[in-house]
Amino acid sequence: MGKVIVHATITLDGFMADPDGGIDWMFGFSSVDEDGELVSNVMKELGAIVGGANKTQTIEEGEIPYGGMLKIPVFEMTHEAREPIERDGITYTFVVDDITHAVEAAKAAAGEKSVAILGGSISRQCLKLGLVDEIQLHVVPLLLGEGISLFGGLGQQIKLERIETAAFASETHLRYRVVK
Amino acid sequence: MGKVIVHATITLDGFMADPDGGIDWMFGFSSVDEDGELVSNVMKELGAIVGGANKTQTIEEGEIPYGGMLKIPVFEMTHEAREPIERDGITYTFVVDDITHAVEAAKAAAGEKSVAILGGSISRQCLKLGLVDEIQLHVVPLLLGEGISLFGGLGQQIKLERIETAAFASETHLRYRVVK
Repeated sequence: MGKVIVHATITLDGFMADPDGGIDWMFGFSSVDEDGELVSNVMKELGAIVGGANKTQTIEEGEIPYGGMLKIPVFEMTHEAREPIERDGITYTFVVDDITHAVEAAKAAAGEKSVAILGGSISRQCLKLGLVDEIQLHVVPLLLGEGISLFGGLGQQIKLERIETAAFASETHLRYRVVK
Repeated sequence: MGKVIVHATITLDGFMADPDGGIDWMFGFSSVDEDGELVSNVMKELGAIVGGANKTQTIEEGEIPYGGMLKIPVFEMTHEAREPIERDGITYTFVVDDITHAVEAAKAAAGEKSVAILGGSISRQCLKLGLVDEIQLHVVPLLLGEGISLFGGLGQQIKLERIETAAFASETHLRYRVVK
């Protein structure tokens, strides 16, 4: 069975987005070369995605994991039950509140491949629940100063083991195993 | 003239110390091999140190930059004027509140060598004042969950350029140039 991987692009000060959720700053570092290849390699490992409940956007409004490039099942955390939808060849299944269940369902859907956890709050919750096997970060060379943090508010010590470090055009790619 | 370098060991979630200032967690990752050699190489570049005002400890109580291994002038920010002291071959000069002055004095003392900025608050203030040339981080493989942050509260976007990335036994060493 595949692994559960917290997968995020962050600034050097650990932010995934502006305070209002914007990621315009990211495009200055968009990578068409080796960086892009490494991100693609990570994406090839994935068989399913678990996304956090997003307060500001719904799937219909355009929030698509990996820009829709990855045609794999998406399990979205929600606070209210709703039917699955299919859009551009991707099935979105909605899971009410139970994160452990969402991760289990994603693992089953992913088969031999891995599950990506996307989003700060859900990543921290999964880390606290001991559900995460690895953390893969793409660190852009920027201090954002303020914003939506990946690890902020974790409130718990978690030991890691460095698996991989790579640096290309602009980003630094860090991969860690969670020590259980 | 040398550079002004923010130099810090941080956890993957960006903490320099526990909420109470403790760094016991760091010693699990203390490096006697290649990591130590890289840290030593950075230390060899340094000609002076600027340290932040420390609310909990005084120099006399035992807070010594680099454990006293580096016999170079230390400029300590304080809120009240006091005479310089010498201890174990290191001169500590106290600078009241004016960080720009402290950095200038340290640069003069360092000559051709570089100045290390140690401490979260002073590092952020120096970054905001445009005084920093480089950031050198040693990232230990740990999520601390809470603590004293290096970049938290910066509140300002600062563009960086990756200069160096290295990974050895446990730590990941990231070096950035501040884009001015």
